[in-house]
Amino acid sequence: MVATNATGTAVSTATQFPRYKAYQKLSRLAEQPFDMTAEGAITPQRVASLVSNACGYKFLYATERVTPEVMEALKQLADEAQAVDKMHRMQAGEVLNFIEGYPSENRPVLHTAMRDFFDDPITAPKAAEAAKLAAAEHAKLKKFIEQVEAQKKYTDLVAVAIGGSDLGPKALYLALQHLRRPGHRVHFVSNIDPDAMAQVLRDVDLAKTLVVVVSKSGSTLETVSNESFLRERFAAKGLDANKQFISVTGKGSPMDDPSRYLECFYMWDYVGGRFSGTSMGGALTLAFAYGYDVLWEVLKGAHAMDKTARNNDLKTNLPLLGALLDIWNHNFLGHPTLAFVPYSECLFRFPAHIQQVVMESNGKRIDKHGRSLDFDSGPIVWGEPGTSAQHSFYQLIHQGTDPVPLELVGFKESAYGQDLDVQGTTSQEKLLANLFAQALALATGKKSDNPNKVFPGNRPSHILLGKQLTPFALGALFAYVEHKVVFEGFIWDINSFDQEGVQLGKVLANKILALFPERRAKKIPSSFPVGEAFLNHLEGL
Amino acid sequence: MVATNATGTAVSTATQFPRYKAYQKLSRLAEQPFDMTAEGAITPQRVASLVSNACGYKFLYATERVTPEVMEALKQLADEAQAVDKMHRMQAGEVLNFIEGYPSENRPVLHTAMRDFFDDPITAPKAAEAAKLAAAEHAKLKKFIEQVEAQKKYTDLVAVAIGGSDLGPKALYLALQHLRRPGHRVHFVSNIDPDAMAQVLRDVDLAKTLVVVVSKSGSTLETVSNESFLRERFAAKGLDANKQFISVTGKGSPMDDPSRYLECFYMWDYVGGRFSGTSMGGALTLAFAYGYDVLWEVLKGAHAMDKTARNNDLKTNLPLLGALLDIWNHNFLGHPTLAFVPYSECLFRFPAHIQQVVMESNGKRIDKHGRSLDFDSGPIVWGEPGTSAQHSFYQLIHQGTDPVPLELVGFKESAYGQDLDVQGTTSQEKLLANLFAQALALATGKKSDNPNKVFPGNRPSHILLGKQLTPFALGALFAYVEHKVVFEGFIWDINSFDQEGVQLGKVLANKILALFPERRAKKIPSSFPVGEAFLNHLEGL
Repeated sequence: MVATNATGTAVSTATQFPRYKAYQKLSRLAEQPFDMTAEGAITPQRVASLVSNACGYKFLYATERVTPEVMEALKQLADEAQAVDKMHRMQAGEVLNFIEGYPSENRPVLHTAMRDFFDDPITAPKAAEAAKLAAAEHAKLKKFIEQVEAQKKYTDLVAVAIGGSDLGPKALYLALQHLRRPGHRVHFVSNIDPDAMAQVLRDVDLAKTLVVVVSKSGSTLETVSNESFLRERFAAKGLDANKQFISVTGKGSPMDDPSRYLECFYMWDYVGGRFSGTSMGGALTLAFAYGYDVLWEVLKGAHAMDKTARNNDLKTNLPLLGALLDIWNHNFLGHPTLAFVPYSECLFRFPAHIQQVVMESNGKRIDKHGRSLDFDSGPIVWGEPGTSAQHSFYQLIHQGTDPVPLELVGFKESAYGQDLDVQGTTSQEKLLANLFAQALALATGKKSDNPNKVFPGNRPSHILLGKQLTPFALGALFAYVEHKVVFEGFIWDINSFDQEGVQLGKVLANKILALFPERRAKKIPSSFPVGEAFLNHLEGL
Repeated sequence: MVATNATGTAVSTATQFPRYKAYQKLSRLAEQPFDMTAEGAITPQRVASLVSNACGYKFLYATERVTPEVMEALKQLADEAQAVDKMHRMQAGEVLNFIEGYPSENRPVLHTAMRDFFDDPITAPKAAEAAKLAAAEHAKLKKFIEQVEAQKKYTDLVAVAIGGSDLGPKALYLALQHLRRPGHRVHFVSNIDPDAMAQVLRDVDLAKTLVVVVSKSGSTLETVSNESFLRERFAAKGLDANKQFISVTGKGSPMDDPSRYLECFYMWDYVGGRFSGTSMGGALTLAFAYGYDVLWEVLKGAHAMDKTARNNDLKTNLPLLGALLDIWNHNFLGHPTLAFVPYSECLFRFPAHIQQVVMESNGKRIDKHGRSLDFDSGPIVWGEPGTSAQHSFYQLIHQGTDPVPLELVGFKESAYGQDLDVQGTTSQEKLLANLFAQALALATGKKSDNPNKVFPGNRPSHILLGKQLTPFALGALFAYVEHKVVFEGFIWDINSFDQEGVQLGKVLANKILALFPERRAKKIPSSFPVGEAFLNHLEGL
């Protein structure tokens, strides 16, 4: 496809993804996808053999609608898109966050450098430099945590952040609650809703509370307002907030100010908020709550997955395998959403984190050359833990009109190590039995003379199976999600690293916000009549 | 459409919904839906006038893609489907939970009778009888709570339930945290995951803990196992569980046993789990946590919405209006999902509750006559609170390839009544400014020469606006959700009240569960080789 621009120059409007040879193959294969409901389709042999392994996880995908031909074409798709090569270039620090021909953030993407402290470090200069800077922050953090522990002054930490700086760290923190220690409680405030702050204020003694404020720019509306709110409460109690507040921010931001913070930790523009869980944004929370060594194990697990993501082999590159299966289900089988269902209560808030990483990264409408997409990019991602989810939305997943591919996660052993045998089996065994049974039931379906008891089947899922949710396993899972999303972006040829879509709402919110003082001042006419019409509805409630 | 069955008799295979005259009209109107991005499309006049009112809520829908013609056709659709008439019949106790010509639950649907204690009670015999029985349970509950309060023995309540019996009560309980009283903590255990139980056990002193176990059948796997788990822990501490456990169950179920429970409260088969939030399932939790009077206000709010739902007028029947707009977006504009985004941190877990109510009720593949649907039934529903969501998935909502209609909720005043003026406006004002701004931004979009700064707009949303999240307002919102879902089912002509889709997974889970003891006994050959192949993956982790 060739069009001309305003000056008559020929401009290609063709996006790359649908023009890969593998795309054509996959489109043909999708016309008659593997029928998992056929007699003998899901054999023990299939279940045994469709598995990949890395970082302590097995990735079981016998219940995806794939054949050897589909897997081969998916691998070809990854190769044509140079997905693994781009992953190498990302981890080496090449500029990948850009839209060609238009103003853009135009910078490298180096969240992997935030944990490149273990074996096989990347030697490319930009990545090595980023890892060195990150290591220096870790040295500061380790010392800081030692001091805090020695003081025995603080019982609570309040983390003020929003978006990725909140959801990732929160998901990590909540997943390790079984390692909780007395006197190390953590609270999160993200929403501008004053009720969010009031809930936390009720539960903490400010005299014994550290506050960490996370904002790369140092100017995020919610975070800055919530920080002011907290500082005012500290002042009201005669406490010096400057001695109890810590910042995690960009160098030179308004929050990089030692006179106002006990300590300033740094983030860099090559680590996006949604990829900042293993940077200082999440590190401080984990180190305070569980100790520095636990944090270190999380980083080690994430780093192990970073290395795996550089292998051009679907037997070990789990994020690439996950990305390709997602793309098969989304772009070729036409499923608009993806549910992430952990069979682990500890991963309760992982779905919200994954939702953010996927939807902010890949919810895009143009490719890296500014061309409108002629295919569906990032899916809608949602989910809740199983087995609870089975009593909630699984009715639709089994019998609804719109199939939902599932990404399932489970562990052989519980995190707390407490269990009970009831009627011959433990709760953990019941949990695992349900996990496997659902994958199988969704795949095979069931015939019946009663139409209400018909299960159409052919509903795809795969399972990430680990031994136990240790800090290492958690870090690996966290990085799995990051890399899967990045691979999908590489294959779609979109920029997964910016978020221009959040700007318009901010602009209009400021215009409407300005109306509140205007109304108090009885200013007429309104500076924004449509906004005024909304605010008028607040009257008479 | 006419087919023949096995004996050659003519059988209609035509579902009703696509054959309504209004359906044809709406299909035509959907070919060129209202363009909200056009200059002057969203005027102050439109914002001011597209509003309905009931139970203290304003329903603002200027940012939906509707014209007077669309609204008229939607109303005609409701009339053709006799939606309001069916609502009357439901509330009167008519048998509506059935599939014609096939074995089915075949019973009335009377969750509205669980709160029909106020003005204009339904006089139809079945409904009146149900309300009378419910009132008797309330008398028991009121007395029970008075005794518990007088004893001052209990500081904690653990609610053991799953699915609707868990999500609805939990959403209600969490929404009223601002009314929390010392010594009245509530914990929920639903998942079979032993970590879910371990998390709660760590935080309670069993000697001071009441346990309420909720299961209509008295035999739900997760609930029964978790109850056994808890009873074992009570016994281990030398406590008599029979004196501290309460059951909420069906009469005559295994849990209707005064020798094992301090008190047995009743549920009836005409109240489904997902509609049981205002029955004893949710009532006990609310009354323990916040006092009986707060519970009563919640019921009063729900009852007010029940009455509203019987009006055949879109100016006041908010659930019907919401249902019709959902159907317009889902079936005619083709949006596969719906996000519920409360601009209220108190409603943090409402999305999970709504997800369950919608997806278990309307995630169906046949109509009430057993005919396969030739249209999309229940949408996928998901969401998180705003403004946090703006920093998460709103990127996709603004610029993704798959628009997501939003149901937004906001309140003029905060629940806790604590706020701070930062730079001339309060946090509550910032919250509201963002709420209105997002509805507007999504509707109007924005042009730009930079393709990455283009906002395509025409992304629909509506706002439920209330004064404050009081118990009454919460009850009304809770019933709004219930009735919206029911209206959608009435219009699609599906049975929103059963859940056959959860059965197959249960059967297979039991088959796989049986393999654990088999494996311990080294039984060969396996009774279920495919299940065995899954379990084999647990080795070598």
